[in-house]
Amino acid sequence: MTLSFTAALCADAEIESFLAPQAELSAMLAFETALAGAQAEAGLIPAEAAAAIAQGCAAFQPNEAALTAGLFKDGVLGPSFVKALRQSLPEAARPHLHFGATSQDITDTALTLRLKPLLAALDTRLAALIEALEALEHEQGGMRLMAQTRMQAALPITVKDKIEAWLLPLRRHRARLAALAPRLLVIQLGGPVGSRAELGEAAEAVAAGLAARLGLGNAPCWQNARDNIVEFGATLALIAGALGKIGQDAAILAQTENGALKIAGGGSSSAMAHKANPVTAELLVALARYTAGLAGTLNQALVHENERSGAAWTLEWFTLPPLAVATGAALREAMGLVPRMRFQPPTL
Amino acid sequence: MTLSFTAALCADAEIESFLAPQAELSAMLAFETALAGAQAEAGLIPAEAAAAIAQGCAAFQPNEAALTAGLFKDGVLGPSFVKALRQSLPEAARPHLHFGATSQDITDTALTLRLKPLLAALDTRLAALIEALEALEHEQGGMRLMAQTRMQAALPITVKDKIEAWLLPLRRHRARLAALAPRLLVIQLGGPVGSRAELGEAAEAVAAGLAARLGLGNAPCWQNARDNIVEFGATLALIAGALGKIGQDAAILAQTENGALKIAGGGSSSAMAHKANPVTAELLVALARYTAGLAGTLNQALVHENERSGAAWTLEWFTLPPLAVATGAALREAMGLVPRMRFQPPTL
Amino acid sequence: MTLSFTAALCADAEIESFLAPQAELSAMLAFETALAGAQAEAGLIPAEAAAAIAQGCAAFQPNEAALTAGLFKDGVLGPSFVKALRQSLPEAARPHLHFGATSQDITDTALTLRLKPLLAALDTRLAALIEALEALEHEQGGMRLMAQTRMQAALPITVKDKIEAWLLPLRRHRARLAALAPRLLVIQLGGPVGSRAELGEAAEAVAAGLAARLGLGNAPCWQNARDNIVEFGATLALIAGALGKIGQDAAILAQTENGALKIAGGGSSSAMAHKANPVTAELLVALARYTAGLAGTLNQALVHENERSGAAWTLEWFTLPPLAVATGAALREAMGLVPRMRFQPPTL
Amino acid sequence: MTLSFTAALCADAEIESFLAPQAELSAMLAFETALAGAQAEAGLIPAEAAAAIAQGCAAFQPNEAALTAGLFKDGVLGPSFVKALRQSLPEAARPHLHFGATSQDITDTALTLRLKPLLAALDTRLAALIEALEALEHEQGGMRLMAQTRMQAALPITVKDKIEAWLLPLRRHRARLAALAPRLLVIQLGGPVGSRAELGEAAEAVAAGLAARLGLGNAPCWQNARDNIVEFGATLALIAGALGKIGQDAAILAQTENGALKIAGGGSSSAMAHKANPVTAELLVALARYTAGLAGTLNQALVHENERSGAAWTLEWFTLPPLAVATGAALREAMGLVPRMRFQPPTL
Repeated sequence: MTLSFTAALCADAEIESFLAPQAELSAMLAFETALAGAQAEAGLIPAEAAAAIAQGCAAFQPNEAALTAGLFKDGVLGPSFVKALRQSLPEAARPHLHFGATSQDITDTALTLRLKPLLAALDTRLAALIEALEALEHEQGGMRLMAQTRMQAALPITVKDKIEAWLLPLRRHRARLAALAPRLLVIQLGGPVGSRAELGEAAEAVAAGLAARLGLGNAPCWQNARDNIVEFGATLALIAGALGKIGQDAAILAQTENGALKIAGGGSSSAMAHKANPVTAELLVALARYTAGLAGTLNQALVHENERSGAAWTLEWFTLPPLAVATGAALREAMGLVPRMRFQPPTL
Repeated sequence: MTLSFTAALCADAEIESFLAPQAELSAMLAFETALAGAQAEAGLIPAEAAAAIAQGCAAFQPNEAALTAGLFKDGVLGPSFVKALRQSLPEAARPHLHFGATSQDITDTALTLRLKPLLAALDTRLAALIEALEALEHEQGGMRLMAQTRMQAALPITVKDKIEAWLLPLRRHRARLAALAPRLLVIQLGGPVGSRAELGEAAEAVAAGLAARLGLGNAPCWQNARDNIVEFGATLALIAGALGKIGQDAAILAQTENGALKIAGGGSSSAMAHKANPVTAELLVALARYTAGLAGTLNQALVHENERSGAAWTLEWFTLPPLAVATGAALREAMGLVPRMRFQPPTL
Repeated sequence: MTLSFTAALCADAEIESFLAPQAELSAMLAFETALAGAQAEAGLIPAEAAAAIAQGCAAFQPNEAALTAGLFKDGVLGPSFVKALRQSLPEAARPHLHFGATSQDITDTALTLRLKPLLAALDTRLAALIEALEALEHEQGGMRLMAQTRMQAALPITVKDKIEAWLLPLRRHRARLAALAPRLLVIQLGGPVGSRAELGEAAEAVAAGLAARLGLGNAPCWQNARDNIVEFGATLALIAGALGKIGQDAAILAQTENGALKIAGGGSSSAMAHKANPVTAELLVALARYTAGLAGTLNQALVHENERSGAAWTLEWFTLPPLAVATGAALREAMGLVPRMRFQPPTL
Repeated sequence: MTLSFTAALCADAEIESFLAPQAELSAMLAFETALAGAQAEAGLIPAEAAAAIAQGCAAFQPNEAALTAGLFKDGVLGPSFVKALRQSLPEAARPHLHFGATSQDITDTALTLRLKPLLAALDTRLAALIEALEALEHEQGGMRLMAQTRMQAALPITVKDKIEAWLLPLRRHRARLAALAPRLLVIQLGGPVGSRAELGEAAEAVAAGLAARLGLGNAPCWQNARDNIVEFGATLALIAGALGKIGQDAAILAQTENGALKIAGGGSSSAMAHKANPVTAELLVALARYTAGLAGTLNQALVHENERSGAAWTLEWFTLPPLAVATGAALREAMGLVPRMRFQPPTL
């Protein structure tokens, strides 16, 4: 159930599926399995323990309510999750679980593990949207259209000019995501205070093994250096902003007085039967402004006190998920809008 | 289910209960019942129609999925809601439902109708928090405490000085909510374009009757003048900000090196058994910064195009509910924190 | 000189005159004079000292460059200002200057002392703008105008309906400023750590005397409880938001395709001679969005660490002045825009 | 003169020198000279005209007050600037000035032309700061330091661990600026509506020539696709955020009760002689939060109406310059802070 009916407008089932508690638990279990595997390989824990941990992770039935209670008590899921998982293991394996790791390692790595398919999903949508716009350009690009500068009719351009201006940032956004992925999609492994001291000389081998097993990049500890996360948030807002611009243009071009664009399936009014409201276009504008705000707030989370800030980290948790979901919603809505758009020949 | 595990930290069951779809539907039905009643009283529609509408509203079983589909199509719940409700009525009553009203009337009035208990709930929590702080002041107020200015030990003050500085804004916030309530908790009635033209000379009587029946204030149409809503958002952020300041103070006073404050039930660490983390205090800081951002974004929704802006209104929907819920969460957490706080005598 | 040419668009000479270094110095000198006067009256310092301080303040020639260097060193003007002023005094008076006060007392009181005429200036402009809109309404109110909902032509309203929707929030803003003034325009007097301990039993008398001499309200120490300041910032953004809405409406109504509004003196284009751009209307939209952002950021300054936070206070200094100035600019521009607006009869 | 004394704290003379009116005028003149040169080369205008334009640009004495008046009238400097420059030319050259260009071309290109040295200046500072931190690491890296997680003492790390966590994002920021430069530092050339139609078949040659002459990259028209600009703003906030984190750490480590860090030249208090306030560290925190807010607001400027939005563009002008300047100030302050920092051996 959503917070309100209207919350559905900034929701997105697919993007949420990567962020949902169930997905987080799966990623946390994958982390512990991979960590134990890498540590066994590095000779830090017995191979039997790693096998038992892998089995235990596969069989573990977490209690979501208890974990949420633990989250409120500890400020992070890690302690209650690890404790419950440990209790489910054979006694001999227990001391080897989560060895040399801390809650932030499991939490941050479980995040990037899910950001990987999330990024891929966004990129797939960007590609599909670009394709839809290119199809529209192919079909209607030669039509003349009155350019609007500063809200005033200016001089004629073509539909192609208009659509190219929409496409350029979208193509750059794909490149941005591709450039960001290698620095964002990396493991977090630092141990209690980020120094990996508990892992001794095997630290680098364990990190490399963990990364390889999870399909993530290897990287030094970034527990309190959140620039890649915040850059991702900024990129999300750039994407949603480009879609908001398309929405704003569409709403203006579809104005009754303008009529250069028809949007099929326009919204109806409870009082005025003649209305065909550019509902999706307006929604794109709202999503752009909403994500702009969230991205700014996420920036505040860069000010991390010392080795780990509960306050800054929690602020990141409050802002990054809705930012990703709203951007996903904007992409989905834009993908639905473009095929309903049809430019109209100038009437002169 | 929440967006993510950590979304629980900025959730609040009671505040959400006022915003949830079910509560919105009840409020929408209350609006139609009251509108019909007021219109019958004013002689605009037959008394029988009003009675049938009241009965129909009491019996109506809305289809949430269909309404959400309507929301995406029309950008607002009104059209699909009114259509479904109308179909459930006896034929003779149908033309009299929603007479002279528009989707925004039902949506905005259904909002203020629920903001009334929401405001009351916040005020109850503020009062309880003030009481808890006063109790702590009563108990420990005479103890000496080293003041901290610019993060440095300054000169001794008392616990009373500290707690009074926390209390002052909270008391002002209660006054702010009380001053805001009469201008915020009012009906919206404007008809399709805000002019109430469809209601003719009976417009003012209908408005007065609608307000009286709903227990809201009467007011001119405010469909595109959202300052009271945005002021409410600003007040919410002021409240959460005051609580963030308490949290920030508590986290600093409870530092290992400082020790002027003990917080019972501190968070545990998955790696360091000796830790007692000021988890709730940090959460209050995060909630303050989160609500600060949302309040700023809500301000963007003041730029309403003409008689009704789908974009600005939707942005309001995206920001006001989480702002109210997060502020509620902050109050709840602060109420839980204060009784766990105990100042420690200075050790010299 | 401005930061850039375009910075002139969010500048305002009158509002800046209240915030400028020279005005701050005058207010700081007024604070020291009034403090000494109140302390002499309360028997805390000799009357001769108070007289010498008053004379010294009247004659003091501050060195702005040295004060700015002191600001960077101390994070606040107080220490270098008080030191320089003290050295300018006869030796006997020196120990009595700034007695029991701290830098924050002089800084915050010098702020509210200048916010008093600043608020008055804003209110004067609001009143003038309301008058200009009422004049336009008087002149053109009866003209028919097509309402626009969700960017689509809806049903006819009148120019009066349109202008009333602009006026309502402006009238409320005047009431907001009037309600805020008594809690905002108050002295700050706390001494080094906010407890007024140095003033002993005379503290309340000194506070009352200081307030009376400065024409400000009396109030308990608010050094780290900045809700009134932040509420003022929120009110500024509400004002600018209401003007942004007027600007947005004007820009849309003046669209070439719409033509319901003519704005005299429209902007020219370097490339298109036929253009008459709604430059002022667009500027109002930009100022609304800019102030919305600043107000959100100002909210972050509520999280004040303990008795005085250099970080939070400095953030307030970065955001409140441009917020006030931009709001002043928006009022000035709106006052200039309204007389240039002329609604056009519908052409049908 | 600054807006207020405290505005000096977020000012930066070097960065401002790139944004100041005089620098903008120089860049605008460089644009017209380069455009005429490229157009002569492409055979669009006579070589004599290009030479006369180059001479005229070299000799032109702009009237800043008249240009500012033009800015208010036209919403952009271009029209009044081009008109005045044209009048200063020999009659035969006049029609060839600014041929096929529009105000946005000159304004945006004059911006990127100045962002080039601005980026270089930021990078130079980043490199110097990295060097200073590496020197500190070299000197004190081996010292033990108590890690702080969630504001509580955790386990010992080394000073090297601490400084590396500060360095990692700074190094990434240099890479970000280097990756951004080729897409940001490009010409804008679109003509009145962005289609370059006035330049005919020579358009691409003129664009290439303009870019080469100005030392900028060539790029398609980006008048209403501002993602590179907004990405630059986001990068600035990332930089300032990383510095705010250093400041936050320093302020906490330098707390009286902690004492792990001494900061030489600490701020004095007007009331407490024993204080040594971490003024610069707090300033870095304030600058981080200020720039975070500005970056969020700049994102709102992505929603550009059609071919050119006066509102969105003006919002960009209000936010990007202070964002760049505040980031420059943060870098300068951090560069000044690091050499004053000295970690203290743990006292046990």
